[in-house]
Amino acid sequence: MPICQTPQRRPYVSRTASFASGADSPVLVLEECLAEIGQREVEVGAFTTIDAAKARASAAASAARWRADKPLSVIDGMPVGVKDMIDTADMVTGMGSPLFDGYRPLFDAASVQGLREAGAVIVGKTVTTEFASSHPRGTRNPWDLRRTPGGSSSGSAAAVGCGMLCGGLGTQVVGSILRPSGFCGAYGFKPSVGGINRGGSLDYLSQSVTGTIAASLADAWAMARVIADRVGGDPGYPGLIGPLTLPPSRRPVRLALLRTAGWPTLAAPARASLEAAVDRLRSVGVAVLTPEDNLALATVEEATADALEVTMGINAYEWRWPLGSFVARDGSVLSASALERHARSHTMTQAEYATLLTRRDRARTTYAELSEQVDAVISVTAPGAAPVGLETTGNPIFVVPGSMLGAPGVSLPLLDDGGLPLGLQVLGFPQKDTKMLAVAGWIEEALR
Amino acid sequence: MPICQTPQRRPYVSRTASFASGADSPVLVLEECLAEIGQREVEVGAFTTIDAAKARASAAASAARWRADKPLSVIDGMPVGVKDMIDTADMVTGMGSPLFDGYRPLFDAASVQGLREAGAVIVGKTVTTEFASSHPRGTRNPWDLRRTPGGSSSGSAAAVGCGMLCGGLGTQVVGSILRPSGFCGAYGFKPSVGGINRGGSLDYLSQSVTGTIAASLADAWAMARVIADRVGGDPGYPGLIGPLTLPPSRRPVRLALLRTAGWPTLAAPARASLEAAVDRLRSVGVAVLTPEDNLALATVEEATADALEVTMGINAYEWRWPLGSFVARDGSVLSASALERHARSHTMTQAEYATLLTRRDRARTTYAELSEQVDAVISVTAPGAAPVGLETTGNPIFVVPGSMLGAPGVSLPLLDDGGLPLGLQVLGFPQKDTKMLAVAGWIEEALR
Repeated sequence: MPICQTPQRRPYVSRTASFASGADSPVLVLEECLAEIGQREVEVGAFTTIDAAKARASAAASAARWRADKPLSVIDGMPVGVKDMIDTADMVTGMGSPLFDGYRPLFDAASVQGLREAGAVIVGKTVTTEFASSHPRGTRNPWDLRRTPGGSSSGSAAAVGCGMLCGGLGTQVVGSILRPSGFCGAYGFKPSVGGINRGGSLDYLSQSVTGTIAASLADAWAMARVIADRVGGDPGYPGLIGPLTLPPSRRPVRLALLRTAGWPTLAAPARASLEAAVDRLRSVGVAVLTPEDNLALATVEEATADALEVTMGINAYEWRWPLGSFVARDGSVLSASALERHARSHTMTQAEYATLLTRRDRARTTYAELSEQVDAVISVTAPGAAPVGLETTGNPIFVVPGSMLGAPGVSLPLLDDGGLPLGLQVLGFPQKDTKMLAVAGWIEEALR
Repeated sequence: MPICQTPQRRPYVSRTASFASGADSPVLVLEECLAEIGQREVEVGAFTTIDAAKARASAAASAARWRADKPLSVIDGMPVGVKDMIDTADMVTGMGSPLFDGYRPLFDAASVQGLREAGAVIVGKTVTTEFASSHPRGTRNPWDLRRTPGGSSSGSAAAVGCGMLCGGLGTQVVGSILRPSGFCGAYGFKPSVGGINRGGSLDYLSQSVTGTIAASLADAWAMARVIADRVGGDPGYPGLIGPLTLPPSRRPVRLALLRTAGWPTLAAPARASLEAAVDRLRSVGVAVLTPEDNLALATVEEATADALEVTMGINAYEWRWPLGSFVARDGSVLSASALERHARSHTMTQAEYATLLTRRDRARTTYAELSEQVDAVISVTAPGAAPVGLETTGNPIFVVPGSMLGAPGVSLPLLDDGGLPLGLQVLGFPQKDTKMLAVAGWIEEALR
């Protein structure tokens, strides 16, 4: 299998129906993943740690459970990776920084506990940018090794996009799940803020959320849902609720096309691909509103036009800690961008931070008003295909509004830009993840 | 100084006026603390770690800053302890559990970063109950060694109550700051939920908050405020705001006497002490309302009558993680109460948890209505003096409503029960900490 072969995703939940009979098994799925890793990992660089022996033992135990008709969950045996911002008691957790070289957490993060309790097979840790921020750590896009896979969940997206894993954990505060999923041809699911317990992830920012990247919408949902079923959402939130398998698809009546501040940057082939999707949806009778049609949508566009500025300001202040403690420990191993963020955090006052929170709250209020008029919002995940070069992780301009709004969203690998993948972004409304998934499922069926 | 000597608090900020001249200095304050530790610590057992050498070096550096008229903050040089739930990069952090024996965090918690940046002298780590929950770890009450100091911030309260420290960090989710402060004759300050950044504290519960225990109201406020000024509140909250030193006292027009579900348990001398305080406030023209006088107060009493049940249910669910990971690591070293909590967490569903959150939200709504009618709420911190015996940390029935409501509160050492200290609890309204402190300051002046 030469590296030039087109990357293929490796769905999981759809195969489990054959596990009880032994016609298929988690062991076979894992061996396929390990073979793919053997072929591609040296060039893609999606992992910081791989533990094939432990994964094989876990997969064998899972296979026995399926044969006994006693799986622990719908994702029992699923080969997954854990973004290296998220603590694992049995694997080094490096946070994308030399500061954490060799760091071995005492106990698992909540999402990892949930995965283990659900029987998932943790194959390894996946590369993150430094502290899940902007500084990349060398992972390449499996569709074109010259290109970034996106970030910050770089390794999970790259590995899932080419079938080295069936699923991976990611985190998103700006665009770190949906953007790399779109660049790598994977399905990304960012739950509503609060949807999955972030405990044990170095991930304290107020609009950050743990989510999943997987080979199908069903897999992305199931992974997220079984975690929340076991460890809940962030404390104080009910957490992601709904059925344990993908909600039945639901035909939307009206969708909103969110152009975002990124619209002028959208590459012509990407725009053509999006417009073809919109035309197709309209052709089957779904209204797709634009700001010219709808005041509530126009108000949301206006309230999120500075989403990147507001988000980066909020993030900068919220990084006072732990960046201050990191610098106190050893600032010399931090990236220039981390040091800049540390410096910026000290130029802001509590009052300035509070003002930004108020601006974010106002934007969320406008979005709540839009929720009464449309079933979901659609957009792209980036201005085009993944850019060439590994120095940046691409432009987050299309995904930051959903993060600022605390909205649930998915990236569907349905668009393209010159033959390379680009995600169709579907956003729902906060704490209404089930409905968003149901609508996204319908959109996928309509556009395939 | 024999152990039978009456414990004395050791205020700090009031002494700093003499630091520039050298007539007094942080070095002298620290030496007094270390002498007190030498006399009492063997019997009180407030510390898990003491680093006198490092503290002396820090105090000397602080003294030089004061002499140069360049203190880092109003608490520069203040000898403080850090509850052993809160990470310190330079000291083992034991979480009150053998599971964390020898655990050395990679970096400081946010509150510790704030203290260091403000120049505070960290003398050591103070004893916490196991995971800041119910299982005590042997600290004794400096007023009577047969009695509990309360919990879970046992060591900070005991050490501050007898002048081994000027201040200490605590955390409260049920009653863990205000109750032990009351039992030990210290000033406790629990900010509004979100008031101080909890990052790096093993303290993920949704109504938990980091706060301070100190030798005066001015010290308790200053410690908390300088931390928030440097590291903010919990992400998404503006954090504790207001002046950097104690707000000027403010005469209340109306106060509410919150009886709580604990009223029938209140010891006769404690009740007499409270009623004398109420009479004194009324005698100087302050209205002190009871539920018979005021419907909003009656509604709050009713909505918080089950505060302990609702809180313990919320906590139990929120402990699914990390307790599940602790049990996976080594359940044999956990207390029976931790194992019970782990078992209980698995009897609850997400939906049941969500229902409890809704009940809490409803109680908070009733409290917001009360805020329009009174300036603050008063109560006691416990049904009486600290109970004899080290097996429990006392009854939280009087302090849990304030925790459930997310309200700021202080414990003022103004009441007594048979010659032993008991706190007068003053509660304010969420995110209005400055006003609460101003009213509490006035109450203290009126009752002294």
